[in-house]
Amino acid sequence: MIGIGIIGYGYWGPNLARVSAEAAGARLVAIADAAPQALARAARRHGTARLADDWRSVVDDPAVDLVMVATPVRTHYEIALAALRAGKHVLVEKPMAETAAQAMTLVEEAARRSLVLMVDHTFIYTPAVQRIRSLVQEGAIGELYYYDSTRINLGLFQRDVNVVWDLAVHDLAILDHLMGESPVAVSANGADAMGRRHENMAHVTLYYSGGAMAHLNVNWLAPVKVRRTLIGGSKRMIVYDDLEPDEKVKIYDRGVSFDASDDDRYQRLVSYRMGDMWAPRLPLTEALATEVEHLIACIADGAKPITSGEMGVRVVEVLEGATASLSRRGVPVDLVQPLRRAS
Amino acid sequence: MIGIGIIGYGYWGPNLARVSAEAAGARLVAIADAAPQALARAARRHGTARLADDWRSVVDDPAVDLVMVATPVRTHYEIALAALRAGKHVLVEKPMAETAAQAMTLVEEAARRSLVLMVDHTFIYTPAVQRIRSLVQEGAIGELYYYDSTRINLGLFQRDVNVVWDLAVHDLAILDHLMGESPVAVSANGADAMGRRHENMAHVTLYYSGGAMAHLNVNWLAPVKVRRTLIGGSKRMIVYDDLEPDEKVKIYDRGVSFDASDDDRYQRLVSYRMGDMWAPRLPLTEALATEVEHLIACIADGAKPITSGEMGVRVVEVLEGATASLSRRGVPVDLVQPLRRAS
Amino acid sequence: MIGIGIIGYGYWGPNLARVSAEAAGARLVAIADAAPQALARAARRHGTARLADDWRSVVDDPAVDLVMVATPVRTHYEIALAALRAGKHVLVEKPMAETAAQAMTLVEEAARRSLVLMVDHTFIYTPAVQRIRSLVQEGAIGELYYYDSTRINLGLFQRDVNVVWDLAVHDLAILDHLMGESPVAVSANGADAMGRRHENMAHVTLYYSGGAMAHLNVNWLAPVKVRRTLIGGSKRMIVYDDLEPDEKVKIYDRGVSFDASDDDRYQRLVSYRMGDMWAPRLPLTEALATEVEHLIACIADGAKPITSGEMGVRVVEVLEGATASLSRRGVPVDLVQPLRRAS
Amino acid sequence: MIGIGIIGYGYWGPNLARVSAEAAGARLVAIADAAPQALARAARRHGTARLADDWRSVVDDPAVDLVMVATPVRTHYEIALAALRAGKHVLVEKPMAETAAQAMTLVEEAARRSLVLMVDHTFIYTPAVQRIRSLVQEGAIGELYYYDSTRINLGLFQRDVNVVWDLAVHDLAILDHLMGESPVAVSANGADAMGRRHENMAHVTLYYSGGAMAHLNVNWLAPVKVRRTLIGGSKRMIVYDDLEPDEKVKIYDRGVSFDASDDDRYQRLVSYRMGDMWAPRLPLTEALATEVEHLIACIADGAKPITSGEMGVRVVEVLEGATASLSRRGVPVDLVQPLRRAS
Repeated sequence: MIGIGIIGYGYWGPNLARVSAEAAGARLVAIADAAPQALARAARRHGTARLADDWRSVVDDPAVDLVMVATPVRTHYEIALAALRAGKHVLVEKPMAETAAQAMTLVEEAARRSLVLMVDHTFIYTPAVQRIRSLVQEGAIGELYYYDSTRINLGLFQRDVNVVWDLAVHDLAILDHLMGESPVAVSANGADAMGRRHENMAHVTLYYSGGAMAHLNVNWLAPVKVRRTLIGGSKRMIVYDDLEPDEKVKIYDRGVSFDASDDDRYQRLVSYRMGDMWAPRLPLTEALATEVEHLIACIADGAKPITSGEMGVRVVEVLEGATASLSRRGVPVDLVQPLRRAS
Repeated sequence: MIGIGIIGYGYWGPNLARVSAEAAGARLVAIADAAPQALARAARRHGTARLADDWRSVVDDPAVDLVMVATPVRTHYEIALAALRAGKHVLVEKPMAETAAQAMTLVEEAARRSLVLMVDHTFIYTPAVQRIRSLVQEGAIGELYYYDSTRINLGLFQRDVNVVWDLAVHDLAILDHLMGESPVAVSANGADAMGRRHENMAHVTLYYSGGAMAHLNVNWLAPVKVRRTLIGGSKRMIVYDDLEPDEKVKIYDRGVSFDASDDDRYQRLVSYRMGDMWAPRLPLTEALATEVEHLIACIADGAKPITSGEMGVRVVEVLEGATASLSRRGVPVDLVQPLRRAS
Repeated sequence: MIGIGIIGYGYWGPNLARVSAEAAGARLVAIADAAPQALARAARRHGTARLADDWRSVVDDPAVDLVMVATPVRTHYEIALAALRAGKHVLVEKPMAETAAQAMTLVEEAARRSLVLMVDHTFIYTPAVQRIRSLVQEGAIGELYYYDSTRINLGLFQRDVNVVWDLAVHDLAILDHLMGESPVAVSANGADAMGRRHENMAHVTLYYSGGAMAHLNVNWLAPVKVRRTLIGGSKRMIVYDDLEPDEKVKIYDRGVSFDASDDDRYQRLVSYRMGDMWAPRLPLTEALATEVEHLIACIADGAKPITSGEMGVRVVEVLEGATASLSRRGVPVDLVQPLRRAS
Repeated sequence: MIGIGIIGYGYWGPNLARVSAEAAGARLVAIADAAPQALARAARRHGTARLADDWRSVVDDPAVDLVMVATPVRTHYEIALAALRAGKHVLVEKPMAETAAQAMTLVEEAARRSLVLMVDHTFIYTPAVQRIRSLVQEGAIGELYYYDSTRINLGLFQRDVNVVWDLAVHDLAILDHLMGESPVAVSANGADAMGRRHENMAHVTLYYSGGAMAHLNVNWLAPVKVRRTLIGGSKRMIVYDDLEPDEKVKIYDRGVSFDASDDDRYQRLVSYRMGDMWAPRLPLTEALATEVEHLIACIADGAKPITSGEMGVRVVEVLEGATASLSRRGVPVDLVQPLRRAS
């Protein structure tokens, strides 16, 4: 029975608590939050758990085997490091840390102590992303040409991060999972409409050595909510709309082929494949439950989770690169990822 | 009675011919195309017009007062210049020319001879764009924060231009019409998925001195057709979906406001305006008919058209800048537009 | 402090329990269900409430002032009657009872004892229906011509009722709330695709003395879920789509007018009003919470609730009429509603 | 070379003329219309055709082998009968005639003279309906449970027919083509919102001996245009949306199955099939061109067209039955179709 302690009971913490309380092989031991009203809410829903206003008491709790860190980004590093040093397994919210260097330190600390370190990139565990991943892996899409995501809404402005760290982080994890290689460069353009500290709209372009391109459109100032990704390949194309209730993933047997010869009447060489569209039925499982189940299994088996600390480091490095490019109007920033995956 | 001669009867020429034949105050005099089958099609539909396989015979035709140039981009400059030098008014397809320098020469030639030179940026004459323009001008949108357009489909690859020259050109004209100022820099990222000569997907970002940002997502390799533009302002936001049959323009009384003070609990200061949505009824007039009517009126009055040669020059200069940035992975290119509009 | 006892903790009971536990001025005293696993679920979520496997113990509980009946339809009458006779206020699920005669007996019993009897027609308390109601009342729609609802999905077949009692019941309550008069006749057509006991698809038409018509399309065998109602009036028309996340209610300034004269070129007399469309922003309040708040207020003030027992009787009488017409392939059944509202 | 004469050049006639002029193996010989402005329009577009203000001159024209009748419904019988008696093949607009008796007389006249008589039920020749038909025939849908169509818009009120004759006629032809049997009874409910001569909204229910049910929702007073049909079967279900640009036909591998045994815990026996959705690519051929091609082939081969006079008779008989039921608030009318197809 794995004892779980949760630090931070604000927006996401209650979801971690609910899923932890219902997870087989685990029990919810303690919840910490500095805000009294947050603890009051926790008390109503999880009367059996120990409540604390000090996160260190959770890290030090001998009944806690696994610490879940759901606090603001700027506190992730200190809390996660303390938990690892106390010998606890750790699940940390995304983005993993404020800098790739900090994230790397957490990965090294976990490795040194043979502890499981997982980053809560929840999207990776959705049936939709899992299905897309398997389609890519079995070659149904063919060569990947592009990944083009729009993730916009009228959103709460974050105090300590820009919109890239808040929204693009989801796509960066999905890309790390799908692409099988890391981007070699990033170019980002953005604006801070109201002269605030941080960009509230941005466009991020990732370049891959294979020639593929990824683009992320993120915006806190949109009148409508959109969560839509287009994935283009040499064989098929995908439209992934996360707001669709039933058909989140649509696969189009459409594309373009070329005759190799290089003739002046170039247009004639284009042959379109306007084929059928197909929307596979997806299970209704909750991603967070799948994720926590996977985490508990990793702890039992000493296995590395899918959304490992290494993935977290790669994601944060791209976020750093994008932020650097943002301040220079799209000047590309090369990415030399120390934990780069084999292409 | 203005005599109209049309050069090029391929994809767009037949539309120019149809509208010219029905336009009050004008008559269709001649049609030229080098392809016999194109002339055969023209003969069936416009038996009264003189048909020629040589464009010069149209330029030299004394019965022709206005020449419409609907040939491939690389021929625009030569034909339009010859027509102006022959003392004809000219309507030229977009983009106006292959280089801003050529476009500028055409503007100067038309000015020297007091001839009307119009570029066929048809979108400017759609009821939707006209309505958006009037909303912006009367201040209903407030300060313009961004213009974000997605213009993608499974498209015919152009032989002589990349996707920016083919699709983004529409948004560049609309922006020139809406913004009341010219962009100061452009950054563009793109890829040529299949190793062809020209980019078939691209993302173009425009910077304005006032702080506004425009972004254009253009793609010839998309599984679905999208023609959607988001316009964000301090007072209201617009969603313009050109594929919507009835409600192309939706105005949202939504936005974000800030308290001036700069407090640590920053998020608390954000106040959302989640207001009503409103879709004005738009007339069903055909843009091209409105445009030709306007052109005929400009010729009669010696007035400068809305989609003037000057607008055409500004659009081509941005296209040149975007192409330069594309080859350098988004390195921004400054725009020093000689015909820059007063901010 | 009003003590609440809930009978039936299956599909809907848990929602009543959650809202009752959070309602101001009330406390959740007891929950009864015959199924052990249902009680186990209740225990995890409402540890403080008394749990019973026998509904009578809730009816007899002196700490209970208000009994909520969320059991199968066939048991509503017996349980609600017992609760009223025990001097408890009652909220009963819809449909109120299996026959209008039973429903009437409950109304009379409540009146005799001056107890509040409410039927849980939740839709009446949604912001969308409340907004539509106020639009109708302030004359914005003009004379009501029709109400046309489609309420279909791939649904769980009910054991003891047909699809009309399961789905059309929602529209019958909304119509009772909107129309200000009761229907004078009902015609219904339906089929039982798989030779089951009860119709699983049906079309119900209601006639009103004023000339208005209502039609309800209900189906348990549809491949897609639809919850869409069109309301047509002499001044405006409404599209109410309950599955739309943001714009559930759209008001169209569209309609048709006629010249009074009766001329052979009849079509010429039709003049269309193709006006703007407008989608008001609706609050995000939960209907069930609004309803329970209203119920508690009615008990405090001895007032009659909006979804009164009388409304429940009228709804059940139409259900009985529709079922009679169903078995006769649409032969209309006159409705002589004893509790008919003044037109 | 078949000589074609067109009578009636109002709304639909111009389409018949355009397609006839382009059809292989035929030539457009004459066009008749009583209205001078209609003839003027015809002259501009079909200068080679003989123009007449008297329909008889077309019927009597020895150069005319095929007469297309596109006049108001009330004139179909007289004109079509005269054309047949003059030995011409006939294409007549839908509905074929004002009464089934008249329609039957036309069928008998054509048979006596071995002439081809076709009714212009254009929808039968659309790629969408052809695909649905083949899916039904190859058993992909299984047993047909229902056909449920919504065909509504803000429509031009017809002078001489109600909305059923104007809109439901399309679905009646499609049903005749799909069902392989004729309906045994019809029930219809409707209203005439503005006290005009004819119903402007109606709901028509058809009963089939096999147990299947069809329902048609037609309305001239709707704020939005809808052309959507649901088809439910034991194996699969179809959503056919004629306004969808790309995916008009969606096939759902969804349905409900039952355990044969009849147990009190009935709900337990329901097993849902929530399978994939699939949208086949459809060709972009114009239905009217396919139809005229088929007509010319039938004349050449002496074959009976798909949309034969017999189909036209069956459709009109249902229209008569529906009108009779409308006036009696849904009282069902039995259909004893003399030309009933084998079940």
